[in-house]
Order: sequence, then structure tokens, then C-alpha cells
Amino acid sequence: MAPLIYLDDPADGRLDEFRDLTTADRRPDRPGGRGLVIAEGTVVVRRLLESRYRVRALLGVERRFAELADDLADVTAPAYVTSADTMAEVVGFHLNRGVLAVADRVPQPPLTEVLAGARVLAVLEGVGDHENLGSLFRNAAALGVDGVLLGPGCADPLYRRSVRVSMGHVLRVPFTRLDDWPGALEVVREHGFPIAALTPRPGAVELTKLPSVAGERVALMLGSEGHGLSEQALASADLAVRIPMAGGVDSLNIATAAAVAFYEVTGRG
Amino acid sequence: MAPLIYLDDPADGRLDEFRDLTTADRRPDRPGGRGLVIAEGTVVVRRLLESRYRVRALLGVERRFAELADDLADVTAPAYVTSADTMAEVVGFHLNRGVLAVADRVPQPPLTEVLAGARVLAVLEGVGDHENLGSLFRNAAALGVDGVLLGPGCADPLYRRSVRVSMGHVLRVPFTRLDDWPGALEVVREHGFPIAALTPRPGAVELTKLPSVAGERVALMLGSEGHGLSEQALASADLAVRIPMAGGVDSLNIATAAAVAFYEVTGRG
Repeated sequence: MAPLIYLDDPADGRLDEFRDLTTADRRPDRPGGRGLVIAEGTVVVRRLLESRYRVRALLGVERRFAELADDLADVTAPAYVTSADTMAEVVGFHLNRGVLAVADRVPQPPLTEVLAGARVLAVLEGVGDHENLGSLFRNAAALGVDGVLLGPGCADPLYRRSVRVSMGHVLRVPFTRLDDWPGALEVVREHGFPIAALTPRPGAVELTKLPSVAGERVALMLGSEGHGLSEQALASADLAVRIPMAGGVDSLNIATAAAVAFYEVTGRG
Repeated sequence: MAPLIYLDDPADGRLDEFRDLTTADRRPDRPGGRGLVIAEGTVVVRRLLESRYRVRALLGVERRFAELADDLADVTAPAYVTSADTMAEVVGFHLNRGVLAVADRVPQPPLTEVLAGARVLAVLEGVGDHENLGSLFRNAAALGVDGVLLGPGCADPLYRRSVRVSMGHVLRVPFTRLDDWPGALEVVREHGFPIAALTPRPGAVELTKLPSVAGERVALMLGSEGHGLSEQALASADLAVRIPMAGGVDSLNIATAAAVAFYEVTGRG
């Protein structure tokens, strides 16, 4: 069981890793960012404890640690117990989920590791909004997508807000960044994944026909909500698919469009 | 063309309907709520202007009115032009979309009017979150759902935040409240809509089979994200359907689950 350590001084040095969570330097993807993964709330903390990320410490109110007792049975990291007010003073805002955990980041897996054994992948370009990215991971997990490949312009899935919105599924669904863009798509293709670009363009085949066109494996490529996929990305795709939309309506939110496409290729499989 | 009226005094009485938008009494569904529909940003204002809601006045910075010039050609309501700072002082926060419109609410249509000519309906119970409700309307519009029926515990689709998140589609997709619950479901059924409850329960048929089971018309019933549908609602349904989910994952967000179900019954139709 994680040792429960009772604290009431918000200035206690042992709480430094939980301090000022809303400040810009808590962006783990940025120079100067402290590089830690932060999980909020029992559901996400539980998912972090089940993940390959090594938990460094936990901070929470007593009631939340009681709820997590079984999950903490084999954990050796310290669990700091304090009041909601002290927590708020440390993290910089009132946190109604009542428990936090911090963990070290891990090196991202090589592309070939994400491809091995996968059937359906998501490939993203320019998904720069942390909440959209988090929602997309949640949908990927729910609908059985095996991995997410991040092209240029994508936000950091391990940023606190992405982790929270994903319900912790960014800690479970394998992902890696594609530094060679769009060159790495060739590697994806060589591993047997035709690349299907989701786009509202005329000429794209209806999403409903994708499973029969693409076959068993597929990499679904999605662009940003505002601008869609770049010309370069579209030119690198094997086919273009579109979600049939009612007349004159803005496209769906990117995470929702992804969910519909995931459902077509996994949920109906 | 709406007359452009230049103002710079935030205390000007003509701006009263735009004042203090974040205060609780701006909930049009609540006693004391001022009962106005508020649209933010050019996209949503444009959709309001195209809707059956009568616009009372607009407030914005000059650049936004220039963008809206064509849309305002036949509008007689006053358009108050001011600076971003004055706008912020009036509404109570900095509004980066730069334009607002207020409109009168209209009586909600009778149930039979929403049912007439419809093919696919959404029936909601306990969807109390304004953003989820707004997203659901956006998805309903994008995927060709013909109307939304609001059971007990649903938020107000015309609350400012719902309007915004829906991208203004709450102003387009017909909706009405079902005061007799679950009695009104019998009326829906009598009009030829089998009621399909979306639920993760074992025994529910897979969503993929819904079109062949339900036939041409269907009313998709969805519950709140936290608790799902009530026993009473489930007992009133003609069949239960479920989205196939990957093992051990929390269900999708309610608006996303709705999108997937809408796609199955409209997008694939």
C-alpha cells in the first residue's frame, strides 16, 4: 500500500510537483515544461496506476484515497493526504475531483511497434486543440482503435487537459509522433494499412463503403477542425472518404467525426 | 439594412438586453430569467437571422458587421456598433467573437408538428449539461435528424452556452418538451416511430442491426451520460440497442454516442 502521509502546510517541499498546475510551464511538451504526466480524479488516477507510466506521488483528500485503496495496494509512491483547501492552495485552483497523481513520461514507442498487431489506426494532422485531442483518444479507446499516429501540428496528448478529457485513455491507447511527414505514411502503407483521408471534398467515397474498399486494415487520416487535411496529406492518401452530411451544415467536431469513422471500421466489423 | 448605431457609453440604456450575460438570471428557462435567446459570433448570429426567432437587436464591433452585411440586408432591428472594450464592459467578459444578437423566444411547437414529416427523431431524458445538449443538436443537424424531443431533466437548448456549442443548430432543428413522461412516448409510437433506447445493457441488440429491425422511421432515446436511461424510460421503449464498445471502456460522451447512432440510422440510409 502506498504510504499515506498527512500534510497541512501548502508550502511543504514534498508537494512541489503538484504546484501551480495552470501555469504555462506545466506544458510537458514545451521547453521548460516540467515533463510530468498529471492525472486528476479517481477514474483517471486509476487508469494511470494501470498504465506503463511510473507514478511518482499522489495528492488528495482522505475520502478519495479510501476509494482508491485497492488500486494503491501495490504502489510504493507516497500518497499525500491533505484538505481540499490546502490542495487548492498548492495546485492554484479548486479541484473538485479531490485527487491527483504525477508520473514520469516514458519514451514514445517506435512507429513499427505501434503498427505491429494493429488493425485500425488513426493518423492526425494539425489537431492542435488539447480537448479535441483528448476526446479523440477517448473515442479511439471506446471504439477499439489500436493506435494513434501524430503528424505535424498536433497537441500533446499528455498535457493535463488532454489527459482529463480523454478520461485517461491517452495513457492506454498507444501513440507516437511521425517526425518524417508525410514520409512516414509510406512506412504505414508498407505495413499493410491503406491510408483513408476523411474529408468533405466532392469525389470522396462515402464512409459506408470504406470497409469494402479498404479491407481488413486501415489507417484513418483526419485533419484539424478548422482547415482539414493539407494538400500534401491528401495527396499522400490512398483514398478519400466522407461522412454523409445533411445539406449546408458545418462539419462535425473532429473528435465526433473520428468516432463516426471509427464506428464504421471497428464497431461494424 | 439594419441601421448601424454607433455607441461608446457602456451605460447606454439601449444596451440593457446585452448586459451581464454570465449572471444566473440570464438563464431563459428559469424564473426571473430574461427570456431572450442570445447568439454569439458571426456563424451563430447568421443562423439566428435565418431562423424563426425574431431578432431584437445586435451588438458588435464594426468589422463583424461588415462581415454580416449581406445577412443584415433585410433586417430592421438596430445594430449597435462599439469597441471591443465597451462590449466587454457591457456583457461582463471579453467576447472574442465580436458580435452578439438577442432575439425573442417563440412558443415551442406541439409534439404532433415535430412528428409530422419526420423520419428520425432523438428523444432525450436527463441530458442536463448545456454543452452536451448543444453538441447533440449540432450532431443532429449534421447527420440529418429531424427533431429532438426533450424528456424530464433536460437542460434548456436555448441557453447561451447550448446555442454556442450547437453552432446555432438549436435554432434550426425543431424541438419540444414532453411534459407527459413517459406517456408522450405513446403518441410518438402511434405516429409510426418505434422507440429504440440506446443503452450498454447486455441483451440490447447491436446498433448495426437497428435499421433492419426498426424500419424506415425511428425515435432514438438517449439518457444522461452519468446514469443512462431510467427504468421507466427503458420499460417504455420498443427495443434496446447498444454501440459495440471495446472491453472495459467507459461509454462515449452522450453527444458522441448520439452521433454514432444518428449516423447508423441516417448517414447509412
